[in-house]
Amino acid sequence: MKPIEDCVVGIVGLGLMGGAIAMALRNCGALAKNSNTVIGGSSITACGAASSGAGAARLLACDTDSEPLKAALAEGVIDEGFPSPENMLPRCDLVFLCLNPSTLLRFLDTWMPAFKPGALITDIAGIKGNIVDAVEKNLRSDLDFIPGHPMAGAEKGSFGGAKNVNFHGKNYILTPLKRNKSENLEFLKALICRMGFGRVTETTAEEHDHKIAFTSQLCHVIAAALIDCESDTGITRFGGGSFEDLTRIAMLNAPMWTELFLENRKELLARIEQFEKSLDKLKNYIVSGEEASLQENLRQVRERRTAMNG
Amino acid sequence: MKPIEDCVVGIVGLGLMGGAIAMALRNCGALAKNSNTVIGGSSITACGAASSGAGAARLLACDTDSEPLKAALAEGVIDEGFPSPENMLPRCDLVFLCLNPSTLLRFLDTWMPAFKPGALITDIAGIKGNIVDAVEKNLRSDLDFIPGHPMAGAEKGSFGGAKNVNFHGKNYILTPLKRNKSENLEFLKALICRMGFGRVTETTAEEHDHKIAFTSQLCHVIAAALIDCESDTGITRFGGGSFEDLTRIAMLNAPMWTELFLENRKELLARIEQFEKSLDKLKNYIVSGEEASLQENLRQVRERRTAMNG
Repeated sequence: MKPIEDCVVGIVGLGLMGGAIAMALRNCGALAKNSNTVIGGSSITACGAASSGAGAARLLACDTDSEPLKAALAEGVIDEGFPSPENMLPRCDLVFLCLNPSTLLRFLDTWMPAFKPGALITDIAGIKGNIVDAVEKNLRSDLDFIPGHPMAGAEKGSFGGAKNVNFHGKNYILTPLKRNKSENLEFLKALICRMGFGRVTETTAEEHDHKIAFTSQLCHVIAAALIDCESDTGITRFGGGSFEDLTRIAMLNAPMWTELFLENRKELLARIEQFEKSLDKLKNYIVSGEEASLQENLRQVRERRTAMNG
Repeated sequence: MKPIEDCVVGIVGLGLMGGAIAMALRNCGALAKNSNTVIGGSSITACGAASSGAGAARLLACDTDSEPLKAALAEGVIDEGFPSPENMLPRCDLVFLCLNPSTLLRFLDTWMPAFKPGALITDIAGIKGNIVDAVEKNLRSDLDFIPGHPMAGAEKGSFGGAKNVNFHGKNYILTPLKRNKSENLEFLKALICRMGFGRVTETTAEEHDHKIAFTSQLCHVIAAALIDCESDTGITRFGGGSFEDLTRIAMLNAPMWTELFLENRKELLARIEQFEKSLDKLKNYIVSGEEASLQENLRQVRERRTAMNG
């Protein structure tokens, strides 16, 4: 892989995460703004048309919605926007697929022939098993695909929320395939760190889906249930921070989380049941007034959570 | 009630919240530092002894533990510290009782005769029913007691954590008694706002305990159960913020929360069951793969949580 400074990078799907990744690539200096790109005025509607400085364009994006492309061009976040990947993919040395899992699988089916020979591809989907399966079966032999999952997000979705996504110090999970070129893996890890992430963990797709079912999906199910069970929106007058912290993620992207919950169903259900057991234990201590057991349990919880810090 | 600037204020219990209240009273200018108080050096060990500027001392505190008193004197947070309330209470126009609920009830039993005639008393306990009952039965007729609950806290307990408690813009609940003097209620509300709180809500003890069971106690039970069900402390490599946000409050003060859970048992159990029903509903959608129902439920949750903001 050539240095990132010499790469053309394509973002497929300029939503919350696609937008945040584009901004991070810009802000970290890896893909400086193309001085030839004319932004603002009439050119911001020229999505898909070759820009006046096409040869120098370095950060490209495609989206079926023209609004985020226009906004990203106007803000100088991308150099060129495309309504379809057709003319973008053949130019990209590195592609970030920033799509919901099911859309991503359909995208690979449809557009596999369009990728530039030798391109490095990565994704950001919150579930990895089905994606790794599909890629292992169907990826063109000259391409490299490193599945990834940046552990960051924000409540307000779409490109408009992208500037609120903070990558600084966050976790990034990679689930490399056996066929990945080690130089590409090193390249991507270095770029991830440069984008601000604090820790890159390599693991298998199975392990990712098992652990994410706990740290991410179960937490979203709990937050949703907590909001579902109280209809009084004025209850926040009685909030002291804990309720707000536990339910902030209930402002979720419903279609995407529905996909993630159902696609990782087996792992998630096992995690829900594990949680229910612990909840039941605490509940029983409270029902029966077992003060000493309850206090000891809470003491252990405090100790374990403290050990989890960092 | 005379202006706060002319009051002597006593803090009973200089832990996390007592310390935070003392600091807030100091920092908001209501109780400027007593220039006569000798702090540092040998005088910081002189807890309970009359200080050289006793007449001018305005912010007093008592605690059975001398360490927080020494620290608070050294930092200029209080003017005088007492190992017992005996010599402090008779001097205080306003008293903040910053004790766990059971300790608070015992304290009132023991020290009722020591309060200064006409004093205004308030507390900070996270449960109000039993405290209101006790006060309505046993309070001296010349005293006024306005039960309160500042909705703020921090993970690191004790006086050492007090500086991390942020009152700014937070909620404060008061559950006034019929016998409270309206001028005292206005006085306390104004002081609370001056300390930085953003919203003071007056309600009954029953309503407080009902709502707090949801916004506070249920959230702490859930956070504790979430940590209880996963023993791998390395799981945080797979955290993206939601797990951390949901479980930060699992670093709880075990004895105090045991008390709160058990004292508010009936309300809390009802809330746990309400939550379990919603969790079960979501779980069943996932088990049966009811994509449309799951997505619609998550959409409604997002809408409700968004309406709860602010």
